[in-house]
Amino acid sequence: MNAKGRVTLPIEQGMDDQLPGILSRLGADAVRNSDGTWLPEITAQLGVKVYETYFPARGQQDFALANPDARPRFYLMSERVAAPATGPLSIDIMKGYYKLQVEPDQGNLRRWWEVIDRTTGEVVPVDGWTVEGEGVDVTVTVAEPVPFHVYTVNFLAWQVWDSTQMYNYITNNWWDDESRVREIGYDARHPVAWEFMKSSLRAWCEERPEVDVVRFTTFFYHFTLVFNDLGKEKYVDWFGYSTSVNPLAMEAFEQEYGYQLRAEDFVDQGFYNSSFRVPSKVFRDWIEFTTRFVCSRVKELVDIVHEFGKEALMFLGDNWMGTEPYGELFASTGIDGVVGSVGSSATCRMISDIPGVKFTEGRFLPHFFPDVFRPGGDPLAEANESWLLARRAIARKPLDRIGYGGYLSLAVQFPDFMARVEQICDEFRSIHDEGQGRRPQDAPIRVAILNAWGRKRTWMTHMVAHALWYKQIYSYLGVIEALAGLPFDLKFISFDDARDGRLADFDVVLNVGAAETAFSGGSEWLDESLAVALRRFVHEGGGLIGIGEPTAVLANGAYFQLSDVLGVDKELGISLSTDRYPVEQPQHFITADLDDAAKVDVGEGAGDIFAVNDDTQILRLTDKSVDLATRETGNGRAVYVAGLPYSFDNARLLHRAIYWAAGREADFDAHWVPSDPGVEIAVFPEAGKAFVMNNRTDATSTTVSGRAKGLADGGDLTALTLDLEPMESRWIDLA
Amino acid sequence: MNAKGRVTLPIEQGMDDQLPGILSRLGADAVRNSDGTWLPEITAQLGVKVYETYFPARGQQDFALANPDARPRFYLMSERVAAPATGPLSIDIMKGYYKLQVEPDQGNLRRWWEVIDRTTGEVVPVDGWTVEGEGVDVTVTVAEPVPFHVYTVNFLAWQVWDSTQMYNYITNNWWDDESRVREIGYDARHPVAWEFMKSSLRAWCEERPEVDVVRFTTFFYHFTLVFNDLGKEKYVDWFGYSTSVNPLAMEAFEQEYGYQLRAEDFVDQGFYNSSFRVPSKVFRDWIEFTTRFVCSRVKELVDIVHEFGKEALMFLGDNWMGTEPYGELFASTGIDGVVGSVGSSATCRMISDIPGVKFTEGRFLPHFFPDVFRPGGDPLAEANESWLLARRAIARKPLDRIGYGGYLSLAVQFPDFMARVEQICDEFRSIHDEGQGRRPQDAPIRVAILNAWGRKRTWMTHMVAHALWYKQIYSYLGVIEALAGLPFDLKFISFDDARDGRLADFDVVLNVGAAETAFSGGSEWLDESLAVALRRFVHEGGGLIGIGEPTAVLANGAYFQLSDVLGVDKELGISLSTDRYPVEQPQHFITADLDDAAKVDVGEGAGDIFAVNDDTQILRLTDKSVDLATRETGNGRAVYVAGLPYSFDNARLLHRAIYWAAGREADFDAHWVPSDPGVEIAVFPEAGKAFVMNNRTDATSTTVSGRAKGLADGGDLTALTLDLEPMESRWIDLA
Repeated sequence: MNAKGRVTLPIEQGMDDQLPGILSRLGADAVRNSDGTWLPEITAQLGVKVYETYFPARGQQDFALANPDARPRFYLMSERVAAPATGPLSIDIMKGYYKLQVEPDQGNLRRWWEVIDRTTGEVVPVDGWTVEGEGVDVTVTVAEPVPFHVYTVNFLAWQVWDSTQMYNYITNNWWDDESRVREIGYDARHPVAWEFMKSSLRAWCEERPEVDVVRFTTFFYHFTLVFNDLGKEKYVDWFGYSTSVNPLAMEAFEQEYGYQLRAEDFVDQGFYNSSFRVPSKVFRDWIEFTTRFVCSRVKELVDIVHEFGKEALMFLGDNWMGTEPYGELFASTGIDGVVGSVGSSATCRMISDIPGVKFTEGRFLPHFFPDVFRPGGDPLAEANESWLLARRAIARKPLDRIGYGGYLSLAVQFPDFMARVEQICDEFRSIHDEGQGRRPQDAPIRVAILNAWGRKRTWMTHMVAHALWYKQIYSYLGVIEALAGLPFDLKFISFDDARDGRLADFDVVLNVGAAETAFSGGSEWLDESLAVALRRFVHEGGGLIGIGEPTAVLANGAYFQLSDVLGVDKELGISLSTDRYPVEQPQHFITADLDDAAKVDVGEGAGDIFAVNDDTQILRLTDKSVDLATRETGNGRAVYVAGLPYSFDNARLLHRAIYWAAGREADFDAHWVPSDPGVEIAVFPEAGKAFVMNNRTDATSTTVSGRAKGLADGGDLTALTLDLEPMESRWIDLA
Repeated sequence: MNAKGRVTLPIEQGMDDQLPGILSRLGADAVRNSDGTWLPEITAQLGVKVYETYFPARGQQDFALANPDARPRFYLMSERVAAPATGPLSIDIMKGYYKLQVEPDQGNLRRWWEVIDRTTGEVVPVDGWTVEGEGVDVTVTVAEPVPFHVYTVNFLAWQVWDSTQMYNYITNNWWDDESRVREIGYDARHPVAWEFMKSSLRAWCEERPEVDVVRFTTFFYHFTLVFNDLGKEKYVDWFGYSTSVNPLAMEAFEQEYGYQLRAEDFVDQGFYNSSFRVPSKVFRDWIEFTTRFVCSRVKELVDIVHEFGKEALMFLGDNWMGTEPYGELFASTGIDGVVGSVGSSATCRMISDIPGVKFTEGRFLPHFFPDVFRPGGDPLAEANESWLLARRAIARKPLDRIGYGGYLSLAVQFPDFMARVEQICDEFRSIHDEGQGRRPQDAPIRVAILNAWGRKRTWMTHMVAHALWYKQIYSYLGVIEALAGLPFDLKFISFDDARDGRLADFDVVLNVGAAETAFSGGSEWLDESLAVALRRFVHEGGGLIGIGEPTAVLANGAYFQLSDVLGVDKELGISLSTDRYPVEQPQHFITADLDDAAKVDVGEGAGDIFAVNDDTQILRLTDKSVDLATRETGNGRAVYVAGLPYSFDNARLLHRAIYWAAGREADFDAHWVPSDPGVEIAVFPEAGKAFVMNNRTDATSTTVSGRAKGLADGGDLTALTLDLEPMESRWIDLA
């Protein structure tokens, strides 16, 4: 049944005897090299596609050294320093920065640098400060600062070491390896660099007839990655645009947009326009401007690749700024595919949902690296954990391909692991084969996540670089992690979309996040038209789900600006004089699969939440604070949850909350939802089948009922009991 | 040794044989009746002073019924109601209010009422709304509301039931007691009421030659106490001025201050100017205006009392608004004494520190009421708990008198309790006798708490009515509770004081509280002159201690506006891209009496706190969040604590933090501070003695060292080991 293919494997020299067998066993139809390995000569005879990595903006050190003006730049902010009681203030602008990475660019600095009084926000006139020193030792002196005001310097700087190579160099401790140089990048804005990039690529393609797929890692501008004076990460933003800035670009921007950019537009008080910040108009303009530039240049490179009959694959990471895979220009680049690392259900969907490409590929964990593939390591457990999270996302929207990275010679020393990878590859292909490549059926409920970014950050909300665990985000990341495997056609919409009437396209809207962030909305809620749009939406029958500090900004006697709709608000300590008599009424459709007496895991919670309406039903209350509440208002409904880390129970809670908010709870029991929240089902009614996944590492038995038409009305109800092995997936017939 | 006196006891009829013995045993020199008891005929022969309660503004129902225009009023806000998609919006303004307490006052309502669009904050023009109904059924209709905007009505209402009497009536369930009427109050602003108040008091005094002390309970305006439609408390603010409002007063205010008052000035978006709100200028003006009125009228009543050779005692509570015991006018009233309920060290100091009165009296717990004095009740434990908290405050600033309330006939059934009260009375008097009525010696460190209220709310910060435990305040109340028993001459100063240069009068300044509150400061910190004053203060050698969310308002890239001084700031979720590498360095002078490995109890904490400077020393870190940190900057020092609920350890932590912040840590070991934080010592060098208190209910042994001059320099160091019985206090010689 399982046609082979859809799998990319890293191979290396010295395994010629084993390779055909391994490739055949896993059904791999493409191979790649890894850092430090080379494709063996046998490759051409393996009958598989060949991927090879390509770096357009670094790696050719001779060119870089010969063209220092073409180095990329970024904007940085000095430390905050208070002025003394009398006299001038000197600021060592490089304090805290890594001198092997950062070198102040003093070119035309009266235009490009800024000194700001951070106590008032005022800019110090350019004749009010002077610069001494050169290279990496630079001091700015404010002649007449206001005593005890705090000042900072926004300065433009050269990136004198490529960010990714620097990261790898430092992480792998290459200091004593004389074969390694500290690679310098070059900026596609610079005309000489751009011509060099094109000719280099052309020459590279010519020299490599054996390569079928050029794996771009990546294009021009690296996400923001700045190191501190100890050579450790100081600031890292996977969505940051700080490195896309240079005077040529800023001048072109001014020509086009009709206004001048300031250093502060990039420095942003030291927040550097993190995606957690409510984005300014200038920053949005800059993203649009940069994306137009990047995508047009990417198209030229892709065209060269295509000229040689090769495919262009983009790695989703590193120098990916300005490609904006969920932007409107991405498809116009002609890129054939996108490959990215799969660390969770949400990151899997972030790749598989990218529109306009021929294929998407997920690089699975664990990497075949010695940190896991060592005596005592447990690569099998990591493979299982990763696969269980990926599988539920793939079942909702298949990746076209999967693959691994690292050293195959390490992996083959773990036969249990290789056997599991074989199963995973087969299981992955089965989803394509049985599901006929289509998405499974969604529930008839149109769901949107509403935040400041909208579609541009589809599946990218609440993420911090390296998918690290952060106390401030796991309670919100859990929402998109849950949704990545739930049967809804989720859209990400912006506040502008909401103001422009797009709420009418949805049945249920979620606003998720901490106050003051782009995801909750912060100051956006001071624009009353936004609250009005949402209130109208719910009044007319819509469902609103607020998680954490939804619609939060303190104004006009409320903190949650839709407290009247949600039925709850947050106590900031200024309304303690109001008496409250919260009563828990735990029984509800939303929590029907949970124990009525059990707390819901709301993660970090949201502080003290209280009910503002008598008709708010408090489903869970902890220390007099509302964890979970529902409310019916107008023709619509609202649900509040204080936080939602990902778990089977919380995913089920959200699944039911969406049905209830949409007023569709009567359908739930016929929609193929297993009684065990640890089991999920993707329904393919056109194929007459459903894909059952036991997400648990234990065996389980669960009941489920549904109709042959899946999540559509009509027909008899079938009720089943399913006994499932640990992690088992199974195709069942719907009728 | 113990001279008798300084104790007030409630007595009653039917105990004539016992009374002389009890009074003698306790050394009581004053007696009072209680609710529902009468003084026995024997009273005159007991040789003690006689107190009797007097209510100037209620209790004479015939007058009240005959003068409904003299009833007091208050400002209330309706529920927040969203306008429909089309058509008018009708708001039932009494929804949620108690119709036996509240009756809308429709007099000249176009002037005194306001309808506000709470989505924009705009006032609806008076011709845009109409009022239907009368009595307690009143509806306001907005003719053309903006669809889906939220509206409220600010309305003036009659108080048709006196708040305290209502509270007692409902709490004690007097509904079926025909002897009880629902008492109506009267307002001293009303000329007829005022004349009646004076003549009534005069008549009352004439009729009661046996009364020595008139115990006013209290004067004119009750703290804000509003009930809901179920007859339960809806809004209660012990510092609230909502009930002091009426058209006569508002017109007089306008005459005097030159601007018109609005309903919203009192309603304040529904926060009603709670003392947790950063006070507006209008509200400050209103307090000043009302206080001037109240104090001048109180003086007239006190003069009448004095005419009859009696003393005037004010109960600190109920109708106390406008007396402002820490205001500048209070002494001018001529009130002889203040009595208040002692529930903690801080409430004890709140009474004993009132300036300008001849005596202060604390009413101790437990009340001789059947809820405690019943079979199975443990009045002894309550007496001990209450006394241990009161004693450490009394040792710092003695109350002049103590007393009890309730039914003596109940208390005498608990001989253990009565024996303990006898000890307490003796112990209390010993503090006066041995300490010669003076305050003990303070540490040579001048300490201030800085908030929006300053002196006016001395010992009254962070308090919510009934001293209830609130999740939002116990982590801050602990600070003043600790300070109430520590050897510092604490002052409460306002942000205006700080701007006006008064910081120079202090060595250490504390800013304590949650963001957005009057105690932390909220928007006050947007005025840069405040941050500058503090920065200068520390730079010049001052100590700054921030607890919770000090100086917090999000502006110019910082949340704590003095993050550069404190060395810490709070992560709101918008700077997660900045890497942090916090390292705990637990050993420090501040925590020397605690276990280095033990967490400090910071109560609710303050969220995610991170160090912003390399030179911030993190003393305690929990889940990567800073609980406790210190920093040296300029010539000064800063300490940050995430929260400080009261405990022996936390009081000691604060004690040491103040010494360290002041740069006086070298003196600490010679300042008579016991090694056991559960023991405190008040030093009276002029008497050559010190008062040692074991605050523990267990025995303890502790070492201590100090000099004969106490906390002043010079002389030999004496080191002692003290073995103390549970709760023991003891006078020791200093040399």
